[in-house]
Amino acid sequence: MEREGVRMADEALFEFLHMEVISYIFKSLEKDDSDNGKCTAKLEGMGFRVGQGLVERFTRDIPRFKDELDIMKFVCKDFWAGIFKKQVDNLRTNHQGVYVLQDNRFRLLTQISAGKQYMEHAPKFLAFTCGLVRGALSNLGVNSIVTAEVSLLPACKFQVMMQRA
Amino acid sequence: MEREGVRMADEALFEFLHMEVISYIFKSLEKDDSDNGKCTAKLEGMGFRVGQGLVERFTRDIPRFKDELDIMKFVCKDFWAGIFKKQVDNLRTNHQGVYVLQDNRFRLLTQISAGKQYMEHAPKFLAFTCGLVRGALSNLGVNSIVTAEVSLLPACKFQVMMQRA
Repeated sequence: MEREGVRMADEALFEFLHMEVISYIFKSLEKDDSDNGKCTAKLEGMGFRVGQGLVERFTRDIPRFKDELDIMKFVCKDFWAGIFKKQVDNLRTNHQGVYVLQDNRFRLLTQISAGKQYMEHAPKFLAFTCGLVRGALSNLGVNSIVTAEVSLLPACKFQVMMQRA
Repeated sequence: MEREGVRMADEALFEFLHMEVISYIFKSLEKDDSDNGKCTAKLEGMGFRVGQGLVERFTRDIPRFKDELDIMKFVCKDFWAGIFKKQVDNLRTNHQGVYVLQDNRFRLLTQISAGKQYMEHAPKFLAFTCGLVRGALSNLGVNSIVTAEVSLLPACKFQVMMQRA
């Protein structure tokens, strides 16, 4: 039971801290009447740096990746599982540098109740993760733009567009 | 190896996010030339709320605590291990409501290099945890004041003073 408790605390720790960060950033920027865009940009930036750091530790013992698709598979499996306790449910690509990662039960959205009135808050909860993915990819040598959308809580999609030099 | 990676990511996730939060809070408040006290208070407040949330999940299956000492032992063992991957190394009390928790290798200080020049930054890295402990205790019905001090990195002591009503 102790081990179960420890595991639970570990997951919850990140979730609670993530919530606090969102609420802090949105509160602290409220004063200067700045728009939500500034807040989500801050969250994205934090995610970016955390993603960079994480992927470095994470790929320490992993052999080099074959190609871009190989990198994306790593992000969907090991990287996602390490952070969100489950793999991405579906990965699609147009084979032209656009990838769509679908998570049918995204961990950082499960705390928001379903219901239309909460949908508008969903982007707050995805910005950090967009940054995480972009940071991870950046450290693996791939520049990208990452956006997210929610259709039906707690499912969501992340779209990764590779930026060729 | 995959499991090892996952475990590592989990721990690192909290560490990196914690670092980002510190740096964000100190940067965002710099503008109004506010003192460090305001920043550490913010961090402490975040820790407090995270501690409250964590302890709720954490004690779900645990029988009621006998007394104050029993609560402190829980904080030093299960709570600490859940968050910091190790138990507190030493717990002392004057039996008059003051407890000193010593951690000889505190996880959130291991990233700071040893050396006198870094000592001044140490309080930043302890404020969140002071809040965590205060929040956990508060949810267990105990009001307290929690402070911390570093003697030799990465060792540190947290002092908990119970506040009787």
